[in-house]
Amino acid sequence: MQKPSLPKGTRDFGPGESAKRKYITGTIEKYFTKYGFQKIETPSLENLSVLTGKYGDEGDQLLFKILNSGDYLKNVREDDLHEGSKHLLPKIAEKGLRYDLTVPFARYVVMNQHNISFPFKRYQIQPVWRADRPQKGRYREFYQCDADIIGTNNMWNETELTLLIHDIFLALGLEDFVVKINHREILSALAGLVGMKGREEEFCVELDKLDKTGKDHVVDAMVKSGAEKKKVTDLLEIFETEGSNIEKIKIIESEVGPANGGVKQLNELLQLLGEQPDRSNKVEIDFSLARGLSYYTGVIFEVKTTSMQMGSLCGGGRYDNLAGVFGLPNVSGVGISFGLDRIYDVMEALGLFPKDVTSGLKVLITHFDEDTFRHGRRILDELRGSGIQCDIYPEIAKLKKQLNYANRIGTEFVITIGDREMESGKYAFKNMESGDQTTRTIQDIIHYFTAKD
Amino acid sequence: MQKPSLPKGTRDFGPGESAKRKYITGTIEKYFTKYGFQKIETPSLENLSVLTGKYGDEGDQLLFKILNSGDYLKNVREDDLHEGSKHLLPKIAEKGLRYDLTVPFARYVVMNQHNISFPFKRYQIQPVWRADRPQKGRYREFYQCDADIIGTNNMWNETELTLLIHDIFLALGLEDFVVKINHREILSALAGLVGMKGREEEFCVELDKLDKTGKDHVVDAMVKSGAEKKKVTDLLEIFETEGSNIEKIKIIESEVGPANGGVKQLNELLQLLGEQPDRSNKVEIDFSLARGLSYYTGVIFEVKTTSMQMGSLCGGGRYDNLAGVFGLPNVSGVGISFGLDRIYDVMEALGLFPKDVTSGLKVLITHFDEDTFRHGRRILDELRGSGIQCDIYPEIAKLKKQLNYANRIGTEFVITIGDREMESGKYAFKNMESGDQTTRTIQDIIHYFTAKD
Repeated sequence: MQKPSLPKGTRDFGPGESAKRKYITGTIEKYFTKYGFQKIETPSLENLSVLTGKYGDEGDQLLFKILNSGDYLKNVREDDLHEGSKHLLPKIAEKGLRYDLTVPFARYVVMNQHNISFPFKRYQIQPVWRADRPQKGRYREFYQCDADIIGTNNMWNETELTLLIHDIFLALGLEDFVVKINHREILSALAGLVGMKGREEEFCVELDKLDKTGKDHVVDAMVKSGAEKKKVTDLLEIFETEGSNIEKIKIIESEVGPANGGVKQLNELLQLLGEQPDRSNKVEIDFSLARGLSYYTGVIFEVKTTSMQMGSLCGGGRYDNLAGVFGLPNVSGVGISFGLDRIYDVMEALGLFPKDVTSGLKVLITHFDEDTFRHGRRILDELRGSGIQCDIYPEIAKLKKQLNYANRIGTEFVITIGDREMESGKYAFKNMESGDQTTRTIQDIIHYFTAKD
Repeated sequence: MQKPSLPKGTRDFGPGESAKRKYITGTIEKYFTKYGFQKIETPSLENLSVLTGKYGDEGDQLLFKILNSGDYLKNVREDDLHEGSKHLLPKIAEKGLRYDLTVPFARYVVMNQHNISFPFKRYQIQPVWRADRPQKGRYREFYQCDADIIGTNNMWNETELTLLIHDIFLALGLEDFVVKINHREILSALAGLVGMKGREEEFCVELDKLDKTGKDHVVDAMVKSGAEKKKVTDLLEIFETEGSNIEKIKIIESEVGPANGGVKQLNELLQLLGEQPDRSNKVEIDFSLARGLSYYTGVIFEVKTTSMQMGSLCGGGRYDNLAGVFGLPNVSGVGISFGLDRIYDVMEALGLFPKDVTSGLKVLITHFDEDTFRHGRRILDELRGSGIQCDIYPEIAKLKKQLNYANRIGTEFVITIGDREMESGKYAFKNMESGDQTTRTIQDIIHYFTAKD
């Protein structure tokens, strides 16, 4: 019998981990709701025709494909079997697992356009799947918590999302983070300036690897794509120039010109953010920020923690044409996506979860025999009827075993039923942490828990 | 540009549907937690070696398989391509989507056996996938809400689950339901009695189709499998005998004998349920209940509504050997699984959702121009800071458009900012449902919402 195992890049979450994950999503949902975002859900399975071509070349390779059901070779001809994996793929697989929540959202908007009131603000908290090589902070199945606004292109929306990012991370207790901001129109102009006009996507893909591969690598890759070496190295130096956000925009403006849409929008964003200085003081313009996804057309965001080495915790941006790809043009959207699993890892490493986040059973009832077990079940029913999270040891067992169990599962209190207790109606009520024991009626015990709420 | 579409058997859930689904899962989670069950999560992807062979022959065919990433034909030889879909499958697909939550749970228990305190009570609320033919109440992606107890085989556990079923359906407002109960050991004995000894699984599979295909079909199928026709028809008549649960057990006891483990356990279960007559009065012994899954070994449950035609809303049973299949023998479990999607459909059809389940924004702030928009953003910040779910129309637009929008999205109140309001600090505060309008300061408005909580 082969030992059971998990697919690589996936994990189980036990009670402690699940409680902590719920703490994070609960906090995020609370703020999403307060900011007027409404929850929707889309299926895990999407047609490959919806998913392919949306995430760049690399993205298509990282999609998980679902083999057609039944006899998937039914309509496959002999030639098809010998043209390689890529050729055969569309003939044996029509569906895939979603790669993010933005493309499904755009599809949802187009399919439901007549029933949606624009501007539409929605949130989604669901898992996504990518066949990446697993490493620290990089899983094959992970949760995204997305908030998007579609059907409006006013910079107030980018501003609101920036404030939302601040509020959420501070609520989670994470103070050391930076919100990097850039703009795809600035990146496009810069691509042209270094000699890669018409190859803006490649420019962004290479630039996005700057942190991972280093400057020399990026220079070489861009030169191979037609860029002039000196112009690239000069640009990378400009990226490193320190200064306030306003100063940085002025410097890049002298490169791309004041008419650049990105320069205008970033200035407007900074002005709107200036209305809330306490909630936007971690914003940092970073012109080297590229983000991997190809559907962004305007402002792009990326949040990193300054406390430890970790990939981005939150990312997003403006996408003017995504609904257009699905047949609904001129409906622009902007959104942000929180990576639950990375946020979890950071909070765990920094000890940011509240102590009581994994608290469990309030009371475990223990007993000695059939009669005390039966009596205990009646008490269980009374306690549960009063809303108390409690349980009874589910079979006859020695008291020592039952108490050890109570300890191991972290129960707050234990009630012990003996013959004397059945007669008197007063029960030993033991605090498992302190060891203190009192004798109380069931009403007293119920009062103890319900009066505290 | 092809119109985007969803894979068959899958659906999107808009804001209204999502709120209702959350109402159901929130209620179920509340009771699961109160009864001492702790949440865990397992991945959507499982190795096919874990999934196959657990759900009967039909089950394997209904599993969704994930094509291996990259060049999935890399290690496939020429012969493999010509032996048919079934032969090629394991060479190009190693993972699948989970089919239920019980098999993943058993795998989790075995993989974490040294860190689990038995008896272990866990709940899981996650989607599962089956390549069934879609029909009413039957989807390809659907949510299950499971509660299982593993590491104990006392009948109190089956009893507790039955009480939990009652509590949850009553809390959801569904009063017309029946909890059918049977036992696999009784079914095994009956299989032998009709001449299908050694073919108990086929007996159950055929019996499970009784509702769908009718008596004659079942008789024919069993006769084909070696049963004696008269014995089958006699048995099906016995199944239809009316009477109390105790009487029914007596009748079947005269067929299978008093030493039958199923007879003993059902009698014990009825006795324990008798301690809570108000919470177990919908229990109905039904010896024709088979359930499709092959891993059940003891009591089996199925809950149906008597209000309308619908598949089962909840099902489950005892499984003695599932952990054993994964290498941990003698660890018995029992669990129940609520079908969120079917429960939703029933509640929707019967109008059981509370009126305010889809309530949204409390306040929308409207404005006239850049100045009033800016002023409105400050007020937005004050209101949100007080915990009020509110928003501001996100771009400059005619007031009429903003008010229409407020109506369409179902906002409770609208605050309108004009020049006069900016000066006076008193704002028009309009109840969108009644049309009533008052003039209030922001503090008044905050007090209006927060004092009510």
